[in-house]
Amino acid sequence: MKHDNKDKQGGMDTRRRILEAAEECFARYGYDSTGVAEICKAAAVSKGALYHHFATKQAIFVEMFETWMDGFAEQMQRIPQQADSVPNALLRMVKMIGVIFQRAAGQLPLFVEFLTKASRDPETWNATIAPYKFFRDFFADLIRRGIDEGSLRQVDPELTARIIVSFGAGLVMQGVFDPEGGRWTEVGVQGIQTILQGIVKGP
Amino acid sequence: MKHDNKDKQGGMDTRRRILEAAEECFARYGYDSTGVAEICKAAAVSKGALYHHFATKQAIFVEMFETWMDGFAEQMQRIPQQADSVPNALLRMVKMIGVIFQRAAGQLPLFVEFLTKASRDPETWNATIAPYKFFRDFFADLIRRGIDEGSLRQVDPELTARIIVSFGAGLVMQGVFDPEGGRWTEVGVQGIQTILQGIVKGP
Repeated sequence: MKHDNKDKQGGMDTRRRILEAAEECFARYGYDSTGVAEICKAAAVSKGALYHHFATKQAIFVEMFETWMDGFAEQMQRIPQQADSVPNALLRMVKMIGVIFQRAAGQLPLFVEFLTKASRDPETWNATIAPYKFFRDFFADLIRRGIDEGSLRQVDPELTARIIVSFGAGLVMQGVFDPEGGRWTEVGVQGIQTILQGIVKGP
Repeated sequence: MKHDNKDKQGGMDTRRRILEAAEECFARYGYDSTGVAEICKAAAVSKGALYHHFATKQAIFVEMFETWMDGFAEQMQRIPQQADSVPNALLRMVKMIGVIFQRAAGQLPLFVEFLTKASRDPETWNATIAPYKFFRDFFADLIRRGIDEGSLRQVDPELTARIIVSFGAGLVMQGVFDPEGGRWTEVGVQGIQTILQGIVKGP
């Protein structure tokens, strides 16, 4: 998903500085109320430099979102390598939910503002649903590995991945929108354990 | 959740006409671009009549949303009375997901626009999370009934309700945002069956 800019170090620094400044401005003023001029000022770069890296304000937002999701995906991908079985990997992943909540809490208004833009613009929309697609493929692979290693029954990997992603997405959504509404990490762990009881191989 | 207006019949008609006109205008022009004047024109009522029923445009939106959720909640509440056991009631409910998708498909931009407003305004926000609370209580009651009737194990009703609502919310979200991404009704049925395997009483 990431931009593979092969510029010299200075170019990458500028790019990162713009992204960090934009994230700060968006969080403070909202997406709509932030102009490219403010981002330039906060990043201490010229408009020319900004437009060299990003065609539009929206492009900055999309890359911010993708970078955030990439970081999360990398963390997730490391877990199966460390866990001794697929069921244990799933349980370790769901325990990361707390970290997601913490990161997401302050970003909620920004995130829904982004969704609003996205729902009216096909290109942004694709960037928004790309993570779902990534996680579906990721979990389908994991389920296949579980079947191969003998820990899971012969379930449908694609379907089971969608069950897990539905549960995870709804859990994150509730945790972000209504943090006081439940002990969400516990709900996550129990939920995955319940789903596992339906898909693990019996004795 | 509903407004209990005890006005004479004419008052209720006007109220309903305003809500229907607003829903049409919002869907066509978006929430922000719809003025109270347009709603008045579409509903063929005076501004005075509109403000007699609704203090603000936002109040119209909140009631639209509540009325929609009330209708859905009523449909859900009827199911346990018709099903012979709690596991069967859960399976019948998840099959309604298709109906939700159909209704929600055209409303997506409007819904995210509403979420954007809501995330900046505590009162609207409470109206948005009220349905989650309703469904959590509703499913917790249902789980308790299942334990009482002997079909479910002695699970924690509150926790299990949150697992089911997380799964359902994530399923609806994916189905609405990415309808082509899966056979969502089937994912729903299989997901509930998988969760049921973890909570039904063994033989």
